[in-house]
Amino acid sequence: MNINLFWLVPVASLIALGFAWFFFRQMKRKDEGTERMRQIASYVRVGAMSYLVQQYKVVTKIFVVLALIFATMAVFNLQNHWVPVAFLTGGFFSGLAGFIGMKTATYASARTANAARESLNSGLQVAFRSGAVMGLVVVGLGLFDIALWYFILNHFVTAASATEKMVIITTTMLTFGMGASTQALFARVGGGIYTKAADVGADLVGKVEAGIPEDDPRNPATIADNVGDNVGDVAGMGADLYESYCGSILATAALGASAYSAASAEVQAKAVMAPMLIAAVGVLLSVLGIFLVRTKEQTDMKALLKALNRGVNSSAVLIAVFSFVILRALGMQNWIGLSCSVITGLVAGVIIGSSTEYFTSHTYRPTQKIAESAETGSATVIVSGLGTGMFSTAIPVVTIGVAIILAYLCAIGFDIKEVLSPQHLSEGLYGIGIAAVGMLSTLGITLATDAYGPIADNAGGNAEMSGLDKSVRQRTDALDALGNTTAATGKGFAIGSAALTALALLASYIEEIKIALHRIGTQTLTLSSGDTVEVGKASLLDFMDYYKVHLMNPKVLIGMFIGAMVAFLFCGMTMNAVGRAAQKMVEEVRRQFREIKGILSGEAEPDYARCVEISTKGAQREMVVPSVVAILVPILVGLVFGVAGVMGLLVGGLSCGFVLAVFMANAGGAWDNAKKYIEEGHLGGKGSDAHKAAVVGDTVGDPFKDTSGPSLNILIKLMSMVSIVMAGLTVFWSLL
Amino acid sequence: MNINLFWLVPVASLIALGFAWFFFRQMKRKDEGTERMRQIASYVRVGAMSYLVQQYKVVTKIFVVLALIFATMAVFNLQNHWVPVAFLTGGFFSGLAGFIGMKTATYASARTANAARESLNSGLQVAFRSGAVMGLVVVGLGLFDIALWYFILNHFVTAASATEKMVIITTTMLTFGMGASTQALFARVGGGIYTKAADVGADLVGKVEAGIPEDDPRNPATIADNVGDNVGDVAGMGADLYESYCGSILATAALGASAYSAASAEVQAKAVMAPMLIAAVGVLLSVLGIFLVRTKEQTDMKALLKALNRGVNSSAVLIAVFSFVILRALGMQNWIGLSCSVITGLVAGVIIGSSTEYFTSHTYRPTQKIAESAETGSATVIVSGLGTGMFSTAIPVVTIGVAIILAYLCAIGFDIKEVLSPQHLSEGLYGIGIAAVGMLSTLGITLATDAYGPIADNAGGNAEMSGLDKSVRQRTDALDALGNTTAATGKGFAIGSAALTALALLASYIEEIKIALHRIGTQTLTLSSGDTVEVGKASLLDFMDYYKVHLMNPKVLIGMFIGAMVAFLFCGMTMNAVGRAAQKMVEEVRRQFREIKGILSGEAEPDYARCVEISTKGAQREMVVPSVVAILVPILVGLVFGVAGVMGLLVGGLSCGFVLAVFMANAGGAWDNAKKYIEEGHLGGKGSDAHKAAVVGDTVGDPFKDTSGPSLNILIKLMSMVSIVMAGLTVFWSLL
Repeated sequence: MNINLFWLVPVASLIALGFAWFFFRQMKRKDEGTERMRQIASYVRVGAMSYLVQQYKVVTKIFVVLALIFATMAVFNLQNHWVPVAFLTGGFFSGLAGFIGMKTATYASARTANAARESLNSGLQVAFRSGAVMGLVVVGLGLFDIALWYFILNHFVTAASATEKMVIITTTMLTFGMGASTQALFARVGGGIYTKAADVGADLVGKVEAGIPEDDPRNPATIADNVGDNVGDVAGMGADLYESYCGSILATAALGASAYSAASAEVQAKAVMAPMLIAAVGVLLSVLGIFLVRTKEQTDMKALLKALNRGVNSSAVLIAVFSFVILRALGMQNWIGLSCSVITGLVAGVIIGSSTEYFTSHTYRPTQKIAESAETGSATVIVSGLGTGMFSTAIPVVTIGVAIILAYLCAIGFDIKEVLSPQHLSEGLYGIGIAAVGMLSTLGITLATDAYGPIADNAGGNAEMSGLDKSVRQRTDALDALGNTTAATGKGFAIGSAALTALALLASYIEEIKIALHRIGTQTLTLSSGDTVEVGKASLLDFMDYYKVHLMNPKVLIGMFIGAMVAFLFCGMTMNAVGRAAQKMVEEVRRQFREIKGILSGEAEPDYARCVEISTKGAQREMVVPSVVAILVPILVGLVFGVAGVMGLLVGGLSCGFVLAVFMANAGGAWDNAKKYIEEGHLGGKGSDAHKAAVVGDTVGDPFKDTSGPSLNILIKLMSMVSIVMAGLTVFWSLL
Repeated sequence: MNINLFWLVPVASLIALGFAWFFFRQMKRKDEGTERMRQIASYVRVGAMSYLVQQYKVVTKIFVVLALIFATMAVFNLQNHWVPVAFLTGGFFSGLAGFIGMKTATYASARTANAARESLNSGLQVAFRSGAVMGLVVVGLGLFDIALWYFILNHFVTAASATEKMVIITTTMLTFGMGASTQALFARVGGGIYTKAADVGADLVGKVEAGIPEDDPRNPATIADNVGDNVGDVAGMGADLYESYCGSILATAALGASAYSAASAEVQAKAVMAPMLIAAVGVLLSVLGIFLVRTKEQTDMKALLKALNRGVNSSAVLIAVFSFVILRALGMQNWIGLSCSVITGLVAGVIIGSSTEYFTSHTYRPTQKIAESAETGSATVIVSGLGTGMFSTAIPVVTIGVAIILAYLCAIGFDIKEVLSPQHLSEGLYGIGIAAVGMLSTLGITLATDAYGPIADNAGGNAEMSGLDKSVRQRTDALDALGNTTAATGKGFAIGSAALTALALLASYIEEIKIALHRIGTQTLTLSSGDTVEVGKASLLDFMDYYKVHLMNPKVLIGMFIGAMVAFLFCGMTMNAVGRAAQKMVEEVRRQFREIKGILSGEAEPDYARCVEISTKGAQREMVVPSVVAILVPILVGLVFGVAGVMGLLVGGLSCGFVLAVFMANAGGAWDNAKKYIEEGHLGGKGSDAHKAAVVGDTVGDPFKDTSGPSLNILIKLMSMVSIVMAGLTVFWSLL
């Protein structure tokens, strides 16, 4: 077979987008319910849209500035002239994926609530299919953008040889990844601050001080809270996973181009296409999986969980099988080894997901222990949650370690004797990238199981505010809980793939340095042994030798310290941002209770719009600084400490950021479920002192799991992307 | 002048111990006060001693096991036969320093309280001189052990050449550092768990539930709480800083031996002696500084602070000046540059200390903001404290980065062209070690300002329980607060020196690999360029090339991930340990209130001993696993991933652990002072809702700042020490 298989990529993209459209229409045809339900839904929809418009306005300005910088670099021959455009499209499509996902979610919530009046299964169908819209849009747009740029650059780029051309094409495409990462960071940080400010504000004053239930229409922050779920958990997540998805494919393609640049143009082209094709087949299997999620009409929770798992597991097992088929069909020499790398990635994702579930689900001891520590007050809940979160980092780290080794060894065909030779090093790193692609290949369906949770959550909010029967809320809560269980696996894949992708990007960084040296006109490198080597023929190791990237170089060590610090600094800034924004919300809600008479008796309607506005403004103001820091640090480190400093920064940020991200996500999830455990009636149930303490834990956990933690995954990759795009400047500057 | 200056080291040691004895006698001659005061003091003394005996019993077992392992390694020629003995003496002296410090503190508390009945200044004199006993014992015993081993090894070790002999001597002496680190880790972890379990237990039930004040004799946990201050804050801190002090000197001496091993034996000997001599002069200046801490009899807080600062600052300025004198007298070629490295270290320590003060003292905005966030409840206090703690890592990291660069450049005489040549690399790393020694050279007095805080705290406890006049408690509280301010600088020195020492140990690790290769009989290394080089003449870079220690080696990367994870895992385990031990204490205190009638009315005495026993048992049980993990991980990583994995582990653990340590220490300190800020009458003062929320923050902060955070500094170095001592096994195993 041959490389014409590439057509699978745009075809899969169109199929994904087609089904997304189909599911969207299907959902839109459902009834939105009573007048009140429509009204609430429209409040939320309008609030969410107005936020997104604001957000995109701010982000557009930053994108324009960055694109101008890249354009200037291109003028001075420090980058090629496709970079600014590619960067912009990456940002555009990432934003579009979030936009469509959110639009769908805001249409779906009332419809899900209405369907849940019928039965649990009906509710699941509407919510899950709407989540699938998001999943398919993300993968569809991702593959579309990849295929588009591949065609464009293939047509326009000229180079001395076919293999060199491919290297330029794939590294240029990484810039579109940077656009996606930048957009994703703003979406996650801004959305995360919005949703948590509203949530914390609504909870602290509404639930704790005024003693009214969650989502009660008398709470002025309740609409903002529901808007927050959409802009944070849906739009933010969409942009985030668009970035992860494209990032893993693009980084692996770039590594494939460099690893096989000494081979024939055909072998190289196959290596570039392999990750795209695995992703394309994954899309088709995801669609299949989505259709497998169905149950009989009269059903219980267990059957629903079984249905969801059937969909996700079938896709995962099938992609493992089909990776052999597709890589064989592509005619890759080491098709068996690379398919094993795919499987390594999938298994690692499942293990990390299971560990996430073990440490955060209240069916297991760790979360139950946190709940029990609530009996001695909020201080012990916090200590216990922090301790458990820190403890829970061990399994994911060891799993990623083993996965790295296995994916590497598979990709080099277990050639133990030459395991670290320059050629094997490139091939092994390519295998690590392939493992990341494998993890995310079935994102179409795993994201569907992740995204339907917030939809069900919002449906519950709608049901509560519209005064529907309690059974409806119970059903949407059940759906939400179900979503939490299935989402654990999705989170495992997202976290694991971030670590592996960042590793692959590290190697791409050196590749970009090579191109930058070429562009500047450096022909040969003098190594520490005194030998000289042509830039074009230099290996990864030669570049590291030339730039003295070794663990005793103070520049590398300082870079590592800064990398570890940036992860903490970034979390500190986002946590404080949530705190400040929440404080404003608390004051506003208190003011309304005080000044607008009759809110609590239900005689007067609170001023929802004012709360929406406060969250919007707070998020806009607060999101800029942390995000800009993330972009500036790698540039500054590059200018001050050169290539060695940047490499240190990236590995330091990766290792510390990964562990910190797992810690924050798990601690946050565990606190959330410890509270739910008590609310289910254990340890005194709702209203007990233990419950109050657990609410404190949950509130602290909110920014952990929904703002700072998930943003870290993006931060790690964005710092790599920025370094890659700015490599020309770093190299040029260090020559001055 | 010549190397006979070495006699300064034992002389300084004896002077320090002599003055310690003098201050101890002086304190003992003071009156211990009323019968009740003596009784309380004796309760605390007996409890503390019984804990320490228990602790040493457990630790002795572990030391014996480790010494047997080293002895076995020596039999199989994987280590030299001095190692087990050196290891044991390091542990012994570290334990002894903690023991004497604690003995002094338990004698001093009642006497301080009694002196405070007279005046603030009298209280200060007793407390500060007692703290000075600890400071001087630590540096005196440290220099004593160093001098002793230097004499012994100089006498007995035989080697092919004088320079080789010096390398063997200095690396063997590092094992005594490992003994000290192991002892310190157990002391910090065990003592930290003890004190926080008692503290949290006493606070949660006594203060929050029963509503009785701190240190009230009706609280069954109050004696345990005061015992905890002694075993955690005094004995733990003593062992900790003994380890830091010796570690910095020994690591730098070992680097000096290797950096100048190609030069003449005399040049090399001077490089080895330089850190010891700087430390010896620092001891003399510390004694001078201690005598400068005196004021007129009638005085206020401001004058006291001035007196303390006069002592600390004079010592610091003088050591900066005298480092030029001593290095010139020693006849070091680059005496100006190395003296500048000393100054770099001192300045970095002061900056980190100031940043610590800024972020944790309630005279500045960050802590005030945390206090203000208490008005919206405990959740916002926690979020705000975590955010501020994370944010506060930036300045220390940047400072350490700049210090590393400057100390390096000073040590190589700003020879910019050859900045990273193998010879300069060794010299530059030596300069970094010298900076760490400079930071800790005046430990005699900085530790005195650190250690007198807990003594004042205990004196306050004694005053409260003995029913002394309120003014006494106010005075001891003022002394305690004063101690917090001056202790910030000491903490800056301790944290900064830990990072720099760990860097120096990294280089020593490679040196030990060299010795291990020699011992096994490997004569030449084949480098990646195909060249071969003799083991004896190979540079740091040659070893890294041979072992493929580069940033793209998956083993290095996995090591880094594991290093970052171990820092979190360790904190998670110690936090959970505190939680569990505190839980037991809470149950016991509740039980006593319930079952022993008349406690709260003061008619029946609570069972203090039972609480002491619970804390003791809890700490003993809980301290073993985290500490053993810290020792086992580097061994396992060495066996599985070899030298490359260990190097990754150490840099990953260092960068992430350092940042995590700063975060935890600062967050904990800030919560503590935010609570005190409210207690001083702001935001509603004691008893307000804001105060209750702030107490939750303080309780969460307790294990942060007194258990997990400070233990991390030891962990970082202990992992390096273990790797160094086990290098022979790693090298041997990787040849199999």
